[in-house]
Parts: sequence; structure tokens; C-alpha cells
Amino acid sequence: MNIKSAFQKPFDAAEYGNRIADVKSRMASAGFDLIICQDPANMCWLTGFDGWSFYMPQAVLLHLDDAFPIWFGRAQDARAACVTTDLPDENIIGYSERLVHHPLDHPFDELCAMVIDRGWARARIGVELDAHYYTARGHAHLVKGLPNCRIDDSRELVNWARLVKSDAELDHMRAAGRICSRTMRRAIDTIAPGVPQHQVVAETYSSQITALEGKHGDYTSMCPLIQVGDGTSTPHLTWSAEPLPDNTLIVMEIAGAHRHYHAPLTRSIHLGRPPEKITRLTSVIVEGGDAALEVMRTGNTAEHVEDVWQKVLNRNGFSKDSRVGYSIGLNFPPDWGERTVSLRPGDQTELKAGMCFHFQSGVWLDDFGAAISEPVVVTDHGAERLCDVTRELIVVH
Amino acid sequence: MNIKSAFQKPFDAAEYGNRIADVKSRMASAGFDLIICQDPANMCWLTGFDGWSFYMPQAVLLHLDDAFPIWFGRAQDARAACVTTDLPDENIIGYSERLVHHPLDHPFDELCAMVIDRGWARARIGVELDAHYYTARGHAHLVKGLPNCRIDDSRELVNWARLVKSDAELDHMRAAGRICSRTMRRAIDTIAPGVPQHQVVAETYSSQITALEGKHGDYTSMCPLIQVGDGTSTPHLTWSAEPLPDNTLIVMEIAGAHRHYHAPLTRSIHLGRPPEKITRLTSVIVEGGDAALEVMRTGNTAEHVEDVWQKVLNRNGFSKDSRVGYSIGLNFPPDWGERTVSLRPGDQTELKAGMCFHFQSGVWLDDFGAAISEPVVVTDHGAERLCDVTRELIVVH
Repeated sequence: MNIKSAFQKPFDAAEYGNRIADVKSRMASAGFDLIICQDPANMCWLTGFDGWSFYMPQAVLLHLDDAFPIWFGRAQDARAACVTTDLPDENIIGYSERLVHHPLDHPFDELCAMVIDRGWARARIGVELDAHYYTARGHAHLVKGLPNCRIDDSRELVNWARLVKSDAELDHMRAAGRICSRTMRRAIDTIAPGVPQHQVVAETYSSQITALEGKHGDYTSMCPLIQVGDGTSTPHLTWSAEPLPDNTLIVMEIAGAHRHYHAPLTRSIHLGRPPEKITRLTSVIVEGGDAALEVMRTGNTAEHVEDVWQKVLNRNGFSKDSRVGYSIGLNFPPDWGERTVSLRPGDQTELKAGMCFHFQSGVWLDDFGAAISEPVVVTDHGAERLCDVTRELIVVH
Repeated sequence: MNIKSAFQKPFDAAEYGNRIADVKSRMASAGFDLIICQDPANMCWLTGFDGWSFYMPQAVLLHLDDAFPIWFGRAQDARAACVTTDLPDENIIGYSERLVHHPLDHPFDELCAMVIDRGWARARIGVELDAHYYTARGHAHLVKGLPNCRIDDSRELVNWARLVKSDAELDHMRAAGRICSRTMRRAIDTIAPGVPQHQVVAETYSSQITALEGKHGDYTSMCPLIQVGDGTSTPHLTWSAEPLPDNTLIVMEIAGAHRHYHAPLTRSIHLGRPPEKITRLTSVIVEGGDAALEVMRTGNTAEHVEDVWQKVLNRNGFSKDSRVGYSIGLNFPPDWGERTVSLRPGDQTELKAGMCFHFQSGVWLDDFGAAISEPVVVTDHGAERLCDVTRELIVVH
């Protein structure tokens, strides 16, 4: 078995070609000769590179004049680039092991040397100034090592190129949605008074990974989130060994992922008879979501979707301060959001068929919160739902 | 049930008091009045803060003159800080939602305003210039917003304070080790020809999370890693839907985590009769590891441990370029290493009882690789192993 042939690539060469052409055109408009991407999702989207090595400095570079991007990373991970990408060998560059956690030097010192070697010492370079793993220290080494380059924030240039999904990407999104639906159902089936929180989460993880119709689940960019009782008033707590109480509200936010494309979903579950204040809030959330999803179609703006949602809330005496959704797609930890479009006032991005969003309708009040969210694809006539799990407060007796 | 009382804290107040006193003394020596920590492990270690919100800008601040640290983060996560920490309410500061993914403004603008409000406009500030989530853009906003402060790299000041573990921390490390041992055994039991890779990983996740002796498993900072066949020549690939072949080498690297303390472990498994080159390499790895672990005691240096290991390899015709281990403990994605001590030439850190390491003895050759690693605690008379899984090439017939 050959190491390269054993790895099934998520897309064909034409898809990567289209992406590179699109990004180059955006680079030209923005005045960049070269971009340096450290966001693992941008690295993967441009090349296919796939490995859990983003805890070390690494990057994908793309120059306007070159046909292929360059992968730059730790030597021991260069082979993962050989396996998972179709880059020519001379475009896979491993840096010296001595640079790992070095107190003074940095892997980007060798990156700068390579940029100069390739004749790009005076390039106009776009960097991902706010990408999760692009540290202030790495940036300082880049600026110092390339004194004759003009280095600017690329302002999520590749993230924006990822916004409208191709048909092949939508296939992966739908596979992720099916895995997520099954996983949420299994989590709900596990929930009962006395069951420890970790048991619900263990079932969740197991279902997230197990293949469905031959398509495996990948790790998701956020862990499964579970909030119980008063804890539902904040969204990002994780689990404990505590057994679930007899009579309580539980909110779970989980995703399914396939080839690192994510479909996240939130559901609210009540053990025992729910109090009226909870049934009221959750029915308003469903109503507001249904109204908003109807206007998620080509031509409407992101802020219009939020406005439709917020009006339903306001009419019922509620409001939501935080954005009601964000674009999703290919991603790696720690976040499944693409950091581009947000469904909120002021975001006038025009929706287009093929954009994907997590419509995150969580409302967090002082003493409890609830969420019934949906991952969706924008179409010409409203949102296509990626998941199929009952949209209501789920009551477990 | 009260939201605060329902959360069982991992340490008592005295433990946090000791940590803060230690860090303040390091700050005074380094010439800092104030440190700003964005590394989630440093945030958690100083305050107990625990939530998956590190994908957004957030920080813990500690000033020499103040008894308690300050938590600064997104408003919706402030309640998670109330739940998981004992910080006084006035030390939990949520920033405005409009700053989330704002094209021009940044949450750190409000952080700067707070620093100035508290009278620290001329402070000598240490920041975590190379922490994973401390982006170049966040740093630029901090520098701009605090023009009269002296802002320097704290050079992993808090990470270094975390190096020697307390007895209470070692209890969590040992719980993590037990969870990891059970998990590796379950993974090995699942491995057989024809079993799809994702099934092994689904079992792994399930065991990682399920409690043992009343202690639950947390998400681990890296996902379970599985390499198959030629793929064993690189360490960070993940799984697919491919069935395991009849006759092949498999390397798995997984961790157990409890209260975010990690015990990572690697094992090599052969399906069918292993070729001599693999049994030879793995027996040398075990021999080198045993020799090295014996000298992992108070007073020896990090580089001495590596030297003992490397000599065993060299004597047998092998060598390893990358470091043979790194300090471990409390951590959050994407890495379970502490980014302080490495077992490699040139690292003259003197080992002390209570330091914890992942002795990562992976050797990656051109066509295959193998690893039989161990998480350990340094003691006065050698390494205490945190896991208990057969240390040899595991052959499955």
C-alpha cells in the first residue's frame, strides 16, 4: 500500500485549482503578491493539508506568480503534507527541529529566509493578523526577518473566499449534518435523571466519530457542550461527573464534522414537566427561527435576517444581545465559525446560495437560558436545514 | 440548586493563594507590575476558570498590588467565570458583544480602558507573546491602547510556575493516567483486521470521557491520533473510514485528562506477525526509555535524560532528531505540552520531584515509525509512571 494513494482526498485537483484562482484574484485586488496563512482551515482549504500539527508554527504561502502554494512546517509533519496534499515535493518545506520552543529563535526565521531565497524579498505580503495561532511573537519574527517587504493584515482574505461553498463542499456539509442529527438523537436518548453528565458526553463523542453511510466523523472544532440547570445561563461550560437531577433544563450544543466541514446544532431538553417560563421562551425561539430561516435567501442581507428574528423576540418581550448566527464550513479547533459574516445589525453582507450558517438562537437570561439552533445552507428560496431533529423543547418524563 | 455550589472546584482556595504568591514573586523578579495571560491553561491555573470560550479574545490579569486576578472576556462567558472561579464579582469583566469579530475595533480596546481606569496606565506589563491565542492583532491593539505602559514578553512566566506540581495536582495527573491506561487498553482490544479506523477512535473517545472511580474524563488537548502502515512515518495524521489491513503496523497516541490535567501515552500495535525491523526498533525504544526513566530524578538535567536515551539508540544504529519529551500538566487544546522544559541537548533545566513529562520516544523513519511513550512524574529516585499498559510492541494475531 502506497502512503499517498491510501489517503482519500476530500476534493479533486480542479476544486483546488478553482480556489487558488479565486484567492489570487482577491490578492491582486487587495494589492498582495504573497499571502501567508496560518489558520489551519485556510491551510487545509488551499492545499488539503490535514494533521493535528497546528499547535506548532506552520503556514501555507501562496504567491501570485506560482501555480501551487507552499507548505511550511515542522520537519516531522512534512510527511503528513506529502500524504494529504498534491503539492510538488519542492513546495513542502520542513523547518529545523531546534527551532521548536526556542527561547530566542523562531521557525519563522527560516520562513523569512525561504521567502528571500525565492526572490520575494520586496513582496507585498498579507498575513492573518487575527488568526488563532498567528502569535504576536511569530509576527514580530516575520517583520524583523523581511525588512524590505510590506506586511499588512490580509483581513481574512481566504476566510472570505471560503464563504460560498461549492457543490462538493455542500456534500460534506450534508454528511456532517446527518452525523450531527444522529448524534443529537443519541444524546437525547441517553439523557435521564441520575445519568452522569460524562455518560451523555461519552455517547455523544462516540456517535460523532462513527461513520454513517460510509462517511466517518471527524473531531469537531469545539467539544460537545452541556449545560444543566442554572448553568444554562451561560453557553460554554463542559461536563462533570454529577448525575442529572430529576427536574431540570439541559442545553446541549454539538456538531457533526466530515472532512472537517461542520454542522453544529443546539437543543434544549427538560427533565420532568417544564415550567411555563421555559416553554414560553423556547416556543418564541422556534417561532423566531422559522421566520428568520424563511428570509435566508439570495439577495437578503445578514442584518435583515437578524432583524426578522429580533422582531419576533421583541414582540414576545424578549431580546438577544449577541449575534444570531455566523458562517460555518471547514474548520479546526478551537472554533467552527469562519470569522466572516455575522447575522447581526450592521452586517450588510448580501446572502448568496451556497453560504452556510449556524443560526445560533441561544437566549441567555439571568437564571436560565435556552437554545434551539440550526445549521443551514442559503438557497435562492430560503434556508435548507442540514439537520433533522425535532425543533421544540424536548421533554423527557 | 445554586449555580456556584453545583460546580465542584478542582482545588481549594489555599492552592490558588500559593500559585498567586509564587507568580507575584516571579513578576517582581522579572520587573512586571501586571501580567496579562491569554493562554487558557494559565487562565485556569491562576483562577480555576473553565469553559470552551478560548476561541474568543479573553484574558486573566494579575497585578502585584491586588489580592485577586481579574477575568476579562465575552459578556456571555462572564457567568462561566462566576461559576468556576472564586473571584470577587468586581474582578469579572465582560466586554461588549459588538467587539466580536469587529473589522476595526477589538475586545482589547476595552481591556486597555480597564487597565487605565484601575490606575495602571504606566505599568510594566508582561504579555504572553507566543501563547496560541494571543494574536498579532490583539497585541497591536494592546500596544496602541496603553501608550504609557512598558509592554514586554513575559516569556512563559506562568507556564514556568506550573512546572512543579503540587500534591493536589499530582492526584489529578494520576487520575488522568488511570483513565488513559483504560482507554489505551480499550483501543487495543478494538484493533483487528477489517475494523474501520473510526471505530477504534469512537471507542477511544468514549473511554476517555467515561468516569473511573468517580472521576470523569475531560476533553484532551489533542484528539486521539492513529497512524496506519506507511502513515506511521509521521506522527499527527488522524483517522478515516478505511478498514485496518490484515498485516500492518499501527501507532496510537492518546491522552486521558481529568480536570484538564493530561497523561498522554503512545503505543505501537502490529496486526499479524511483525517484520524483524519493527521488533528491533520497538525493543530499542523500550530499552532506551527504561534507561532514561531511571535517571529522571531530582538533580539530573533535562539534557542528561536525552543523552542517556540517545546513547541507547545510537548503540543500536538508530537516532532521534526531535526532543524525547516535554513537560505536561494542565492544558487546553491545541497542545498538552507546557512549552517550558524539553528533554533535548542544551536544555539544562534541573529536574525536581513533582515535574511531569511526556517521555515521547517516537522514532520516525522513512517508511515507518514507532513510539512507546510514557507520561511520568519526576521523583527523588527516578520516574513514577502514570500509566500501566504493556511496554512492548503489541502484536494482535
